[in-house]
Amino acid sequence: MNDEFYMNLAIDEAWKYQFLTYPNPAVGCVILDKNKQILSIQAHKKAGLAHAELEAIKEALKKLNPNLDIPDEPNKAHEFILKNHSNLLKDGIAYVSLEPCSHQGKTPPCVELFTGLKFKKVFIAALDNTKAGGGFEILKNKGISKHSTLCEERAKDLLKPFYKWQRGEAFKLFKLALSLNGSALGKDISSKESRIYAHKIRSVIDLLVIGGRTMRMDRPILDARLVDGKAPNLCILSHKSLESFDKNISAFCIKGRNYYDHIPKDTKFMMFEGGENFLKSFKNDMDAFLIFSNSRFTAEKSLSLDLNFKAIYRGELGGDSYGIYELQK
Amino acid sequence: MNDEFYMNLAIDEAWKYQFLTYPNPAVGCVILDKNKQILSIQAHKKAGLAHAELEAIKEALKKLNPNLDIPDEPNKAHEFILKNHSNLLKDGIAYVSLEPCSHQGKTPPCVELFTGLKFKKVFIAALDNTKAGGGFEILKNKGISKHSTLCEERAKDLLKPFYKWQRGEAFKLFKLALSLNGSALGKDISSKESRIYAHKIRSVIDLLVIGGRTMRMDRPILDARLVDGKAPNLCILSHKSLESFDKNISAFCIKGRNYYDHIPKDTKFMMFEGGENFLKSFKNDMDAFLIFSNSRFTAEKSLSLDLNFKAIYRGELGGDSYGIYELQK
Repeated sequence: MNDEFYMNLAIDEAWKYQFLTYPNPAVGCVILDKNKQILSIQAHKKAGLAHAELEAIKEALKKLNPNLDIPDEPNKAHEFILKNHSNLLKDGIAYVSLEPCSHQGKTPPCVELFTGLKFKKVFIAALDNTKAGGGFEILKNKGISKHSTLCEERAKDLLKPFYKWQRGEAFKLFKLALSLNGSALGKDISSKESRIYAHKIRSVIDLLVIGGRTMRMDRPILDARLVDGKAPNLCILSHKSLESFDKNISAFCIKGRNYYDHIPKDTKFMMFEGGENFLKSFKNDMDAFLIFSNSRFTAEKSLSLDLNFKAIYRGELGGDSYGIYELQK
Repeated sequence: MNDEFYMNLAIDEAWKYQFLTYPNPAVGCVILDKNKQILSIQAHKKAGLAHAELEAIKEALKKLNPNLDIPDEPNKAHEFILKNHSNLLKDGIAYVSLEPCSHQGKTPPCVELFTGLKFKKVFIAALDNTKAGGGFEILKNKGISKHSTLCEERAKDLLKPFYKWQRGEAFKLFKLALSLNGSALGKDISSKESRIYAHKIRSVIDLLVIGGRTMRMDRPILDARLVDGKAPNLCILSHKSLESFDKNISAFCIKGRNYYDHIPKDTKFMMFEGGENFLKSFKNDMDAFLIFSNSRFTAEKSLSLDLNFKAIYRGELGGDSYGIYELQK
C-alpha cells in the first residue's frame, strides 16, 4: 500500500484518543519494518504518558523480541530502548501524524529514537511550530525524514484543541447523544462504550457546562465514574440562582468539586452537555460537536433546528456511531 | 499486525460492494508478500467480473512488476497469471472473506491461483457450501490453507443476500435517507456518493418498490442515471390503480421498464424506497435496511416510530455516514 494508507492508519488511531490527550496534541504513529510489514499502530493516550512514537516503537520492538523487558515509565523506556534495540528496527519506516518532538519535556525527545534506532524514513503529516518542533529539520538533515502533505488536513484537524491551547484560548466542545432518528430524550441513549468515552473526556476537562433545566429534571451525577476519573468542576447556566437548586441532586454531592453559575475566566477546556435548547443557545460559541447516534428509532420528539455540520471524524463505539463535527457557517 | 487485522481489511473492502455483486457473494481479499508487506486489498465488484482473489493477485503482481501486461478479461487474466507469475508471490499470504472457488464458472477456479503461484498460507473467514466450495479442502491438503474463525460472523453477515439467493428466496432491502436528526423530508438529503451507491444498487435489483404517495408527491425518476445503469422495474404499492396515475411522472417515461401494482412472483432482489409510513408498513418483511445520514439538522419533521436496529456495517460516503442494519425483534 502507499504512504497515504499508512498515514491514515496513524491518524485514525490518534482520533480514538481525541480530547483525551489535552492539553497535549492527539498523535498517532505507525511503524513498518524494513520490508514494510506493519509492526505497530499506536497513539498518544494521555498527557504525561508516552508519546505516540515511543508507544509504537515499544510495541514494534516487543513484536520482534518478546523477551525485551521495556520499562513502563517513558523516560526509563526511552533510555532502555536506545541501549537495547539491537538494530531490530534498522531501516524501519515510521508514519507520524505530528512532527516528532526534539526537546526534553515530561518525556525525552522522540526524534532521538528515530536517529538512534537508525530508521530509514520518517513521514510526518503536520509540522509542529512550538518549542517542541524542529524534529523534522533534524531528521531531514540526516536524510531520513519527509514531510508528507498528503494527509496534512486530517492531521491538522486532530490538532485543533492543541492549537487553541497554544494560543491561550479556550476550547469548547458540545456533547450530544441522539437516537438514529434524532431524539435526545429518554434514558441510556448511548452505548456503554460511548459513555466511557464521554466520561474519559469529563476526567480531563476543566469545566462541565450544563443548563439549569437539565439539572432540575434529570438530577444527574455528571461525574467520570465509568473510568474512575476525577469528576469535573460544574457550571450551571440558569436564570435561577445556584442557591435555589435542591442540594440533594447527585451532582452536588461530589467532594472536591467546584460549582459555578458562570464560566470562570481563564477556563481552557470545557464540555457543554445538553439537548435542543442548550444547543440552540450555544451552538455559535462551540469549537466542535461530539454527536453520538445509537441504532434505534424512537417515538420521542426529535431535535428540530436548522444546522449544517461538517464531519471531521466518524467512528464507532459499541453499537453507536459517532461523529466529531464543526458548524458550517 | 495479527491475522484478524488483515482479514478485517478484506471484509471492509467487500462491504463497499455489498448488494452490488448480487447474485454473487460480496468477497474481499488481501495479499501480503512473504515478508508480510500488504500488496493489495481488493473485492469482487460485480457478477461476471473478476473474483476478489483474482483482483487482489492482479494488483499484487502489478505492484511487484509494473511491466506485467495482465489482460482485463478474467479467464485470460487467470491463464496469463498462471504462466507469467515468475514466482513473484511465492510464499505469499492471502486473507479471503469467503472460501476460494474450486470450479469453473464464468471465471476459472481461484484456488488454482493460490496453488499455482505457491502461496504459503490462505486464511478463509467463511466456508462456501455451494458447488463452488471445496477450495478449503484442496488448499488444506496442500498445507497452505487455514479456516480462521476469528472474523467468521462478519464474513457471514456479508453473505446474507447470497445465502437467500442460494435457497431460492427473495432478499428485501429498505433504503432510507435521513438528516442527522432523523428527517426523511426535503430534497437532496444524501451526498452524491450516497446517491451513486443507491443507483448502483438500483442497477442490479430485480424490482424497485415504492408507495403511491411518493409517486404522486415527488414525481421521481427512480432510475440509475448516476451510474449509467439500467433503470429497475418498478412496483407501485397503492390503494389506487396504476391507471389512475399521471403518466407524465418521470418514472413512467423510461423505455423498457416494466410496471407492477404488486410484487411479481419469483422476484428475487428488491429494494423498497420510502419514508416513515412505507417503513412502518413493511419493516417486518425486510432483510436489511440501508440508512444514509447526512451532516445536517433540519427543522422538518423527523421520523417517529419505535424500532431497534442492529448495525452489521457502518461506512462513509461523501459527507454522509451510512449503516446497514437488521431489525432486532
